[in-house]
Amino acid sequence: MIGGGTGAFIGDAHRRASRICNDFQLIGGVFSKDFEKGKLFAAHEGLDTHRCYPDLNTFIEREMALSANERIEAVSIVTPNALHYQSASKLLKAGFHVICEKPMTVTVEEAEDLQKTVKKSGLSFALAHTYAGYPMVRQMRELVKSGILGNIHRVDAQYYQGWVNSMIQGTDSGIQGVWRLDPQHAGLSSCMGDIGVHAFHLIEYTTGLCVSRVLSDLSPVKDHIQLDLDGTVLLQLPHNIKGVIRSSQVTAGEENNLTIGIYGSKASLKWSQENPNFLYMLSDTEPTKVYKPAHEYNTQFAEASHMMPSGHPEGIYEALGNIYKGMAKSIRGEDTFDGEFPGVLDGVRGMKFIKNVVESNKEGNIWKEL
Amino acid sequence: MIGGGTGAFIGDAHRRASRICNDFQLIGGVFSKDFEKGKLFAAHEGLDTHRCYPDLNTFIEREMALSANERIEAVSIVTPNALHYQSASKLLKAGFHVICEKPMTVTVEEAEDLQKTVKKSGLSFALAHTYAGYPMVRQMRELVKSGILGNIHRVDAQYYQGWVNSMIQGTDSGIQGVWRLDPQHAGLSSCMGDIGVHAFHLIEYTTGLCVSRVLSDLSPVKDHIQLDLDGTVLLQLPHNIKGVIRSSQVTAGEENNLTIGIYGSKASLKWSQENPNFLYMLSDTEPTKVYKPAHEYNTQFAEASHMMPSGHPEGIYEALGNIYKGMAKSIRGEDTFDGEFPGVLDGVRGMKFIKNVVESNKEGNIWKEL
Amino acid sequence: MIGGGTGAFIGDAHRRASRICNDFQLIGGVFSKDFEKGKLFAAHEGLDTHRCYPDLNTFIEREMALSANERIEAVSIVTPNALHYQSASKLLKAGFHVICEKPMTVTVEEAEDLQKTVKKSGLSFALAHTYAGYPMVRQMRELVKSGILGNIHRVDAQYYQGWVNSMIQGTDSGIQGVWRLDPQHAGLSSCMGDIGVHAFHLIEYTTGLCVSRVLSDLSPVKDHIQLDLDGTVLLQLPHNIKGVIRSSQVTAGEENNLTIGIYGSKASLKWSQENPNFLYMLSDTEPTKVYKPAHEYNTQFAEASHMMPSGHPEGIYEALGNIYKGMAKSIRGEDTFDGEFPGVLDGVRGMKFIKNVVESNKEGNIWKEL
Amino acid sequence: MIGGGTGAFIGDAHRRASRICNDFQLIGGVFSKDFEKGKLFAAHEGLDTHRCYPDLNTFIEREMALSANERIEAVSIVTPNALHYQSASKLLKAGFHVICEKPMTVTVEEAEDLQKTVKKSGLSFALAHTYAGYPMVRQMRELVKSGILGNIHRVDAQYYQGWVNSMIQGTDSGIQGVWRLDPQHAGLSSCMGDIGVHAFHLIEYTTGLCVSRVLSDLSPVKDHIQLDLDGTVLLQLPHNIKGVIRSSQVTAGEENNLTIGIYGSKASLKWSQENPNFLYMLSDTEPTKVYKPAHEYNTQFAEASHMMPSGHPEGIYEALGNIYKGMAKSIRGEDTFDGEFPGVLDGVRGMKFIKNVVESNKEGNIWKEL
Repeated sequence: MIGGGTGAFIGDAHRRASRICNDFQLIGGVFSKDFEKGKLFAAHEGLDTHRCYPDLNTFIEREMALSANERIEAVSIVTPNALHYQSASKLLKAGFHVICEKPMTVTVEEAEDLQKTVKKSGLSFALAHTYAGYPMVRQMRELVKSGILGNIHRVDAQYYQGWVNSMIQGTDSGIQGVWRLDPQHAGLSSCMGDIGVHAFHLIEYTTGLCVSRVLSDLSPVKDHIQLDLDGTVLLQLPHNIKGVIRSSQVTAGEENNLTIGIYGSKASLKWSQENPNFLYMLSDTEPTKVYKPAHEYNTQFAEASHMMPSGHPEGIYEALGNIYKGMAKSIRGEDTFDGEFPGVLDGVRGMKFIKNVVESNKEGNIWKEL
Repeated sequence: MIGGGTGAFIGDAHRRASRICNDFQLIGGVFSKDFEKGKLFAAHEGLDTHRCYPDLNTFIEREMALSANERIEAVSIVTPNALHYQSASKLLKAGFHVICEKPMTVTVEEAEDLQKTVKKSGLSFALAHTYAGYPMVRQMRELVKSGILGNIHRVDAQYYQGWVNSMIQGTDSGIQGVWRLDPQHAGLSSCMGDIGVHAFHLIEYTTGLCVSRVLSDLSPVKDHIQLDLDGTVLLQLPHNIKGVIRSSQVTAGEENNLTIGIYGSKASLKWSQENPNFLYMLSDTEPTKVYKPAHEYNTQFAEASHMMPSGHPEGIYEALGNIYKGMAKSIRGEDTFDGEFPGVLDGVRGMKFIKNVVESNKEGNIWKEL
Repeated sequence: MIGGGTGAFIGDAHRRASRICNDFQLIGGVFSKDFEKGKLFAAHEGLDTHRCYPDLNTFIEREMALSANERIEAVSIVTPNALHYQSASKLLKAGFHVICEKPMTVTVEEAEDLQKTVKKSGLSFALAHTYAGYPMVRQMRELVKSGILGNIHRVDAQYYQGWVNSMIQGTDSGIQGVWRLDPQHAGLSSCMGDIGVHAFHLIEYTTGLCVSRVLSDLSPVKDHIQLDLDGTVLLQLPHNIKGVIRSSQVTAGEENNLTIGIYGSKASLKWSQENPNFLYMLSDTEPTKVYKPAHEYNTQFAEASHMMPSGHPEGIYEALGNIYKGMAKSIRGEDTFDGEFPGVLDGVRGMKFIKNVVESNKEGNIWKEL
Repeated sequence: MIGGGTGAFIGDAHRRASRICNDFQLIGGVFSKDFEKGKLFAAHEGLDTHRCYPDLNTFIEREMALSANERIEAVSIVTPNALHYQSASKLLKAGFHVICEKPMTVTVEEAEDLQKTVKKSGLSFALAHTYAGYPMVRQMRELVKSGILGNIHRVDAQYYQGWVNSMIQGTDSGIQGVWRLDPQHAGLSSCMGDIGVHAFHLIEYTTGLCVSRVLSDLSPVKDHIQLDLDGTVLLQLPHNIKGVIRSSQVTAGEENNLTIGIYGSKASLKWSQENPNFLYMLSDTEPTKVYKPAHEYNTQFAEASHMMPSGHPEGIYEALGNIYKGMAKSIRGEDTFDGEFPGVLDGVRGMKFIKNVVESNKEGNIWKEL
């Protein structure tokens, strides 16, 4: 693991998820820029502190010196965003499989370069689009693939949060200190880059289609904020399908309200992240059907993505664990389901989405090809 | 009543609603273009068939010949859309109060002319935007007005149906016979004109704000259909508020799924027409609150809009009945709550919405001032 | 109508329901013990005040003097409970059809006597077990009848309210003034007599089975209250089916939370009065199905019990209206669906339930045959 | 770990839960009666196979021979039920902390003896009543303790499953092969012993009260089945509180539908295991409030029981993980919250519940003191 030391929220999530899937064991890593802190963390985790390294180069050098048997096989990158590209590239080139936190890179160019690196390496690369790990999202993907919806007419995704509200109530100077609202640290976009891109990924993941163009209308909410905190994106997809992404970080009281609807001529599917074990299929001629995990009526892929008998709720850790599990199968050379973990191409698509959404808005709400 | 004879769905709805509010009695009208059929209907309803007239002019002439005591006071117009404007104008000029089914007119110009006629007449005019009659919609309007949401950041309304799916599966010639998909009968728009405008009205009704401009992306779904069956509309409102309306008639399995969310800096409100007796208030710092009718915690206006103790569900007839009730109070010269029935201005706004949404789409998805 | 004058809640509900079903018109009645008040009410309702009578005997005498054409056909009894039996008996013997508010009588003996009177009269008699008028309750009844559940294993009904809480917080003397808690006015039971019996009726109505014995555990909640405000009743039904009724008037915050579940070997059905347009069918091998009104997949009976297209919520008035509608069909001699309105037998069963539940509790929670 | 080798469902759940809470590491154990299989499992888990033992006595002997530093600190018992008592007693006497799967023992006598052993040992003992680990169950317990409900009037718990349906459709001989329906293996009770006892525990856990007596009505559903598969239990609690437990393994389509309601004079609380992150507080005078994890409005105990920001669903593994975490704190001698893990007393209470429920039914549905 690179990053994710004491107090790091996302590193902790990756560790728990990797543990719950029963396929990974934390051996070592670079847990902090401050080597002493990193070692303290390693000790606290019960690791052999010799496997705790001061920096990435040392990590690579020393691990490569070990026998293939002993050597760390896969590395999770949970550093600040700006380091993802560089770290992933180095690790892949050195021969490590990589699990990378989102966003994959800071620019489209980096993303495309990393895509080449992955291809050349022949190694496994997973991107933590966690929501693709939910069993009912996988069921949704497979149901769409089966053609049961007829012609798709419309896709509609939403990602609403409210937590930024508390950060923008104060004075300008208060806001200046918040790195998430600072373009130098957060990149091109706040709302679309952090959460809108999850909605985008979910659409492409469940439909199996690529969005062809976008038209966006974004808002920084307050004049002195430089990044978008709220916005809507019109989507054009192949086969004349239209779609829309709505996303906000300032919708008071919303927690992590990611939803998706895929609407077809024969049936429609709806799913919501905050009740992830319920998938609704609507049709004009039959009662609405509620799919849940752990039933024989589900597809094999969905059924391989839960651990408990029906009625025992699993959540976000299990979803991320499922992505780790897919990665483990890939590393071991086992057959994986189509879509068992998001990869470098998903990262490239995401970066293109963010860039074009921001440009569409800047250029006067016009269509941009993706 | 003008229109609404045997087999007419919307006329029946108006009759039931006017009865359930306890304030109206059906006396007579013009129930059919075919006078004999009209008289049969009147007899079946137990009416004095002398109050059943062959046409609107005869209706006006004969009723005006009666003493003020005996004369019909208010007329419900439930004819085909193209006759709304003419009928309403004539009735108002003759001195009758008017309840008009939606859409109020066919063009913006007619709508503005009718607005003048209403003003000049000094009479009461109600437009059947039924959803404004639900107690929890009224509670929503009053809560927004109270300022409890803080600054509004976003409004989000949806109106999804699926029933047009079955009409467009066949051949072209099949579709040509459907009047709703024929511009000559249905006007400028199918989806936005029929249901999108309800979502629009709900936004302006609950926020008390006027949408200032729109940008739309509409779809006829199939090449040979001439009107929109599906679309998204970006909205700009005052105070830098952004919004979006999503509407479709081809989202399979959706019934009458009208929802609205108003998102503020301190709290947000969400309501759904298919569960109309539940209003949700979200905030970042408190548990979500669920408002229901028939509680002292509601505003006076909301409390005046239900008839049963709490826990006894009321629905769409009661909502329309509430609009009739407001109209009755207005006719009797009683004090009404602000917003107790939608009026001619709501009709003008609706027609402007439809026109500009259609033009925005035609002109390449650009902003149009409303 | 007998009873139900100014300010009477239940009389108003019956009037609105009879109007919304389009089959009844209010002509006259005895609206108050105080004749002057009754006449004022009749005038306010726009009735011919000659059809407003000072008492039941005068009503019968004068109406019978009219020609069959003019005469009132059916009478709704919405008086205090103690007068139901006597009024219904007189009216039936005089030749009027009767719609009677619940409870039908005060004792089992009266109920059985009324049953004979109805039989002898050959007239139609409806009891206002309103919940049997909901479309999805009727769908439930028909689905059970179809055998789709396999062997029924269990029935489970609940009726929880909270409104009595506010009445029992005060001193003893405060409680003494409340007629609902006074055995002389309220009869044998408060909770079971007023609402538990609805749950009981719903079980017998939807399963088509008669409860064979009961064992109850009731509570007056406070020592100085003489009637039950809360209780549980174990049920034995034929074919070794077990059931339970839970009912309370002191479950704070509950409004009118009547629910029923019928659980079988192949499938189960669940319904809740506060969301009456959703019926859930569960099975071990298929996704849960959600039935809603206004769909071709429903039975004819359910489809005859709604008025609007799907997605337009109907509620309690429409449910009661459906019972009035069934009564109208019966009076006109038309074919009715099996179970289209509850009758005198339902009233007899209800009285037996209340009596035996109270006795089971009094005698130490033992089984009593029904 | 004792038990829980290859293919063992509950052992796997304990391993994942102990991992996700970040406080435990699997070192060794007795994973199978077949030593070779046990060693294979240990190897597969990446354990040092020297810490895999052929039987419990060897385990104790060899681990005790290690230094305190190296020695396994705590043991999870996930063997067949009949071995729980003996294993737990031996381990405690040897000085190991114990986490025991449910049921704690087979008889009340064993349970009471184990209670003494725990007391004498001074060690920590946790019983896997997993549902007590959900954050919103803990919030419920704390809200009740705060007195916010006023006087409690009623407690109502349900645990419905449907999975036994498929096992009893066949012939008698088919059923005879199922150990769960065989008294020799399953003990006194199937439904009440396996799941009803969870509902019982939840009631005592959230109210902090002890049930004083029970009256039960149980059913084996089919004549030739010897154990209860379905039943209802009336409860008497102190302060004149009444309650009821409904439980079934043959309610088709139910998955793991454990719910609880606590109803008071001022407010009520409702929670459902299949949507564990939503806790509802009802009152007669205020809108219903929906509590969710990860908010400052929750109590400290509830807030210490989740790992992710609000809106990220956690489930059953996290709940069990919270119990492991409480146990870890106890082993380390840290302060724990009151109720942070169920202990030996909860096991004694559960065994008494099962015994008395079965006896009440056998003796003709009479009250039994608990």
